[in-house]
Amino acid sequence: MSRTVYLNGDYLPEAEAKVSIFDRGFVMADGVYEVTSVLGGKLLDFAGHLARLTRSLNELGMDNPLPDEEWLAIHRKLVEVNAIDEGLVYLQVTRGNPGDRDFAFPPKDTPQTIVLFTQSKPGLAANPSAQTGIRVISVPDLRWSRRDIKTVQLLYPSLAKMEAKAKGADDAWLVEDGFVTEGTSNNTYIVKGGTIVTRQLSTDILHGITRAALLRFASEAQMKVEERPFTIEEAQEADEAFFTSASAFVLPVVEIDGKPVAGGKPGPVTTRLREIYLEESLKAAI
Amino acid sequence: MSRTVYLNGDYLPEAEAKVSIFDRGFVMADGVYEVTSVLGGKLLDFAGHLARLTRSLNELGMDNPLPDEEWLAIHRKLVEVNAIDEGLVYLQVTRGNPGDRDFAFPPKDTPQTIVLFTQSKPGLAANPSAQTGIRVISVPDLRWSRRDIKTVQLLYPSLAKMEAKAKGADDAWLVEDGFVTEGTSNNTYIVKGGTIVTRQLSTDILHGITRAALLRFASEAQMKVEERPFTIEEAQEADEAFFTSASAFVLPVVEIDGKPVAGGKPGPVTTRLREIYLEESLKAAI
Repeated sequence: MSRTVYLNGDYLPEAEAKVSIFDRGFVMADGVYEVTSVLGGKLLDFAGHLARLTRSLNELGMDNPLPDEEWLAIHRKLVEVNAIDEGLVYLQVTRGNPGDRDFAFPPKDTPQTIVLFTQSKPGLAANPSAQTGIRVISVPDLRWSRRDIKTVQLLYPSLAKMEAKAKGADDAWLVEDGFVTEGTSNNTYIVKGGTIVTRQLSTDILHGITRAALLRFASEAQMKVEERPFTIEEAQEADEAFFTSASAFVLPVVEIDGKPVAGGKPGPVTTRLREIYLEESLKAAI
Repeated sequence: MSRTVYLNGDYLPEAEAKVSIFDRGFVMADGVYEVTSVLGGKLLDFAGHLARLTRSLNELGMDNPLPDEEWLAIHRKLVEVNAIDEGLVYLQVTRGNPGDRDFAFPPKDTPQTIVLFTQSKPGLAANPSAQTGIRVISVPDLRWSRRDIKTVQLLYPSLAKMEAKAKGADDAWLVEDGFVTEGTSNNTYIVKGGTIVTRQLSTDILHGITRAALLRFASEAQMKVEERPFTIEEAQEADEAFFTSASAFVLPVVEIDGKPVAGGKPGPVTTRLREIYLEESLKAAI
């Protein structure tokens, strides 16, 4: 069945949703995005995603083109018309179509390009990887330095994910100056002696919405959290390793560069954190 | 007058040239490009641009979708139908439209997206900046680490150029670990005691087609060339500073971070190199 997608005010069949070849998103990767999960037809952590969207846009000198209630209305309409029970809503905003290609920004009144579409993912909450865990390899982090801005410059994460697959793994953890920054599209964690360790926020990593929620829930559950960088070796020797993202929630990592972590099985802290995250996020879903 | 552009086998009015919102170039910056200059209706350094295109594609695991003679035919047809005397031909190839968004590459038989368009630039050869020189500021180089691949991940160069303009300059030179890598869209040089100094090729910089031609011409003219990194301070104290790019050829830099270089005027080596480059490139233009 063809999806209905949103493009610049219109709801269109997906095959008709096209942007100019001069769009700044196409010729210059001058755009940002968000992905919001849908469970039971409701949006998870929606306010967090909108706040980060505004921040990403502002960091690039762009305004948020729509008020919050309109973003919400579009998300809800797409979820409804595409009958999404479990899945994702992707949104992207670019600096628009100046009608030609130039490194200089177009005039401020150039309409931004706004794209939203859904992805149906039945079984998103009951992901079998939560039981089995996933395997990762480490690769150097070659991305640009402003990873706190959620831009569409996703070529390297895509290349790293393909390298992982070629090596029989599921994903890659990125390493810079000896320390893990994050996964290709997720934040990374280890558990050691009951303490959850994850890299502190900076321009080096994405400020994960799921990360923020997880750390809040963990602290409410009296779990100890330490925000600092860790190495691949430390992760391999940890009691548990896991990652978070808006679309995977919390998932265990059971192998890093061929070495089993936590005996190759999901650990109790990871499993509990996934339960808490899903419970609490669903309560607040809109 | 509306341009005629090329998109996936068709010649179209520019306003009709659109790509899917799922194009890998739009959602993942998964594409590469080339820009070839046109003088007197002829293409400069065309073979060099095609060779680099193939290399960029191969580095990303893509094939070059067209044979050389077809690329040439498209370039020539666009130059002709758009009556380009002086200007540019831009070409972009992306990994195509998989019909949805996924970090994983689409199947190998997914047709790549091929886009070409012209930009008319009367006076390209007689650029007044060749007489006056341009002013640059230095900014940290925050780009990804594979700058030898000419991808469309141009957000940071665009931001840096805007920062330069905001500070009353024309362009920015990017600095990493204390040394200049290159300009926002060009290779950088200084002249000291008659020797032309420019950073050696590596993954840190673009392998400029104009750079290669210039170094060849310089060496044929018995000029001394040293390939090594240099600092902003060294550039400020050099006899001359300049940059090269496919669309600007050779242009003098007469101010760096507010300090005049070479007394604030284009120097003789730069001026001579521009003359040689234009003469020799025009001879070989096709």
